[in-house]
Amino acid sequence: MADKKMVEEITSMDVDFAQWYTDVVKKAELVDYTSVKGCMVIKPAGYAIWELLQRQLDERFKKAGVENVYLPMFIPESLLQKEKDHVEGFAPEVAWVTHGGMQPLQERLCVRPTSETLFCDFYKNDIHSYRDLPRVYNQWCSVVRWEKETRPFLRSREFLWQEGHTAHATAQEAEERTIQMLNIYADFCREVLAIPVIKGRKTDKEKFAGAVATYTIEALMHDGKALQSGTSHNFGDGFAKAFGIQFADKDNGQKYVHQTSWGVSTRLIGGIIMVHGDNEGLVLPPRVAPVQVCIIPIQQKKEGVLDKAYALRGILEKNFRVKVDDSDKSPGWKFAEAEMRGACLRLEVGPKDIEAGKCVLCRRDTREKVEVAFEELESRVGELLDTIQREMLQRAEAHMASHTYTASTMEEFENLFREKSGFVKAMWCGCQECEDKIKEKLAVTSRCMPFEQENVADTCVCCGKPAKKMVYWGRSY
Amino acid sequence: MADKKMVEEITSMDVDFAQWYTDVVKKAELVDYTSVKGCMVIKPAGYAIWELLQRQLDERFKKAGVENVYLPMFIPESLLQKEKDHVEGFAPEVAWVTHGGMQPLQERLCVRPTSETLFCDFYKNDIHSYRDLPRVYNQWCSVVRWEKETRPFLRSREFLWQEGHTAHATAQEAEERTIQMLNIYADFCREVLAIPVIKGRKTDKEKFAGAVATYTIEALMHDGKALQSGTSHNFGDGFAKAFGIQFADKDNGQKYVHQTSWGVSTRLIGGIIMVHGDNEGLVLPPRVAPVQVCIIPIQQKKEGVLDKAYALRGILEKNFRVKVDDSDKSPGWKFAEAEMRGACLRLEVGPKDIEAGKCVLCRRDTREKVEVAFEELESRVGELLDTIQREMLQRAEAHMASHTYTASTMEEFENLFREKSGFVKAMWCGCQECEDKIKEKLAVTSRCMPFEQENVADTCVCCGKPAKKMVYWGRSY
Repeated sequence: MADKKMVEEITSMDVDFAQWYTDVVKKAELVDYTSVKGCMVIKPAGYAIWELLQRQLDERFKKAGVENVYLPMFIPESLLQKEKDHVEGFAPEVAWVTHGGMQPLQERLCVRPTSETLFCDFYKNDIHSYRDLPRVYNQWCSVVRWEKETRPFLRSREFLWQEGHTAHATAQEAEERTIQMLNIYADFCREVLAIPVIKGRKTDKEKFAGAVATYTIEALMHDGKALQSGTSHNFGDGFAKAFGIQFADKDNGQKYVHQTSWGVSTRLIGGIIMVHGDNEGLVLPPRVAPVQVCIIPIQQKKEGVLDKAYALRGILEKNFRVKVDDSDKSPGWKFAEAEMRGACLRLEVGPKDIEAGKCVLCRRDTREKVEVAFEELESRVGELLDTIQREMLQRAEAHMASHTYTASTMEEFENLFREKSGFVKAMWCGCQECEDKIKEKLAVTSRCMPFEQENVADTCVCCGKPAKKMVYWGRSY
Repeated sequence: MADKKMVEEITSMDVDFAQWYTDVVKKAELVDYTSVKGCMVIKPAGYAIWELLQRQLDERFKKAGVENVYLPMFIPESLLQKEKDHVEGFAPEVAWVTHGGMQPLQERLCVRPTSETLFCDFYKNDIHSYRDLPRVYNQWCSVVRWEKETRPFLRSREFLWQEGHTAHATAQEAEERTIQMLNIYADFCREVLAIPVIKGRKTDKEKFAGAVATYTIEALMHDGKALQSGTSHNFGDGFAKAFGIQFADKDNGQKYVHQTSWGVSTRLIGGIIMVHGDNEGLVLPPRVAPVQVCIIPIQQKKEGVLDKAYALRGILEKNFRVKVDDSDKSPGWKFAEAEMRGACLRLEVGPKDIEAGKCVLCRRDTREKVEVAFEELESRVGELLDTIQREMLQRAEAHMASHTYTASTMEEFENLFREKSGFVKAMWCGCQECEDKIKEKLAVTSRCMPFEQENVADTCVCCGKPAKKMVYWGRSY
């Protein structure tokens, strides 16, 4: 009953996916709204996911030679304006600080929307010789973009992210680093978040302000919309020329560095929710689940039950993240709450179980139940968590495969987006006119030109001229 | 020679301690200055110390039931003004955002100088019943205070910190949490940073804006000045009343919560430098040293030397943070650089050592050298790092003990601060007049009323009236 009641409070995803999302983030206590329009509080259950994600991604960064730093959150207006394309992309959406203490500032400062300009200003003085290269720096911080429409995790005025900024002696090395970091993001999404992604290059229309090339990983949400989940940019020497970042090469000539930047944000949490969640709430991949095993004592007032629950926690918490729900709520309510919050395994233990030397484990993702003898508990929990992680990825892959379509004519293309939702693969001539026309007509955008190209037709789906690239199209968040 | 040259570039601490400090933070590549006045770049060598410190403190927090969250960086002006004392304390030194995107804001926002008001605004809606208490939340973030004079780590316009904010059902529980967190800070400084501290309560004059009581840990720097290294505040129900944070208690009555907050910042890195550093640069306690063992190959071009250096790294890096300096600099230069950056142990290995099956370990703190056979290396490194950690604390304790004085008359008090530098313990009547008079006359401030009170005299060192408290006085950063 309690179970039913709690679940009734969230909208079914089949009725209204956007409302389902909002209900889940609120009901699973991931975020709360604030008095500061467009900004959110990330509550303990949400922040714990971010911490787990951050630690595992940071480990992968460090193995790839990345060093962490921290740069100021303010950018003087004159600095933001140094690179023409970049300022055009960001100036319309930044927050401006005009007063410090009681005094008006001589030059106003924007709160960083991204830190290319600050890193350039820093590298200009920090890099002198080829011996100082490469610089492979990253920072974990928050950034601000004055968005009009906001949604928790997906688009908010302030969000948490990491931004890597590198400088290299050669164009080739910069391009290799750009791709290396994109691959790290893709592997991380797959192996840790159980989210399959398409890797590819953005069209010129969709690339980052100031970049020569932008690469992206695109994930498919349960409702068939695409989520840009991470990007990696190659800047060539454009910023270096605008900021004067030169180094003395081995031949003693002064050369400009080649730069990259790459980032992922708390938006990934939105991706986890929308790829894996269901009508009972969150489903979390074990590797980022703050609670992997939620122990719920049955008839907890009976002698020995709570003690056994704590003893089982003692055994499991050496290797897993475990919680005992010993609150005074009913077991049904606790079941619903553990489901809502995405605990991977529910462990039920009551007087009869204790007598029989066993307990019940119930998987969050499939709801399958198994009885497990106490002495096998530790190894069975480990196996089940591995299975859940693997099968969650398999289901997400199957969903993406079954929601990826191919169109070779404009008619097919239109029909697909009218009747289905997902990715549509179609050929493109490479000109922006066709890209604009498709966007206007179908309200879809080019997600990327995937690294794995296929020849699904010979001609552009829009103009019929010879095709240059296969593009993934989709509706986006 | 190279060693000498590098060291000559930093001012001797006996000549000019402030300049020595500035030279070390720059030369050890901890920070760099930026185009943003009063803000710094924390470079990899500095940020790595912060990461190690953060991880270990966060572990201690989590054991004490603390949960991490993230709140917005902006505070609407009306929210900042809700608690009278608090706004008076902070309004003069905040940065104001007045425009978002192209539009002026309806209400200006300050960049958080601290987040009491945001947490109150959040708790007001988040706390309903005694079941929701206690709330023991913390966030790691940056804050902004528009300081006029700035110094790296010690005082800058933006700095990194953690701020804990808790809400409790009773006054007693709030007071207990305030003290518990102060004790965690003190133990952490002692056990991890090898910095002994005095724990005590601030006088009313020195307490935090809006607090009922502020507790502090005070450390003594090498030059005899005091550094306030962490604070913990009990707010009573003052903020709760200003913001309307009430809960239904077990008796169903509506009651106000009792609140605390507590924080430490990157200032602790300044403390590490000034407690442990010497004329050759940084000396880092092993528990927060990014490089615990710096391997320097001697005659590295000879066959087998670099291979051996990498092999030793392979053995050591399972348990320690190890670096091989295989750059093309001279060994002398590498020695000086490793010293400057505070690597705890230097490991020298050359062709003769390899032949003899041994290498040389040199302690950064004492410069003692020992020869160690390869097969004993791993265990000897572990022992030496433990010894360094322990002896660094012992030396800091001895320094504090020998620089803590007692004054029972004003004459003694004045002479001590004229001739010595350190803490002076003296009795106080408890009135602010005497505190003001002492501050004006001697340019020293009351650091704290220590928990461990002694009766060093019967009367106030200033007015001669009966004494109420023993106070630690000192010159401060």
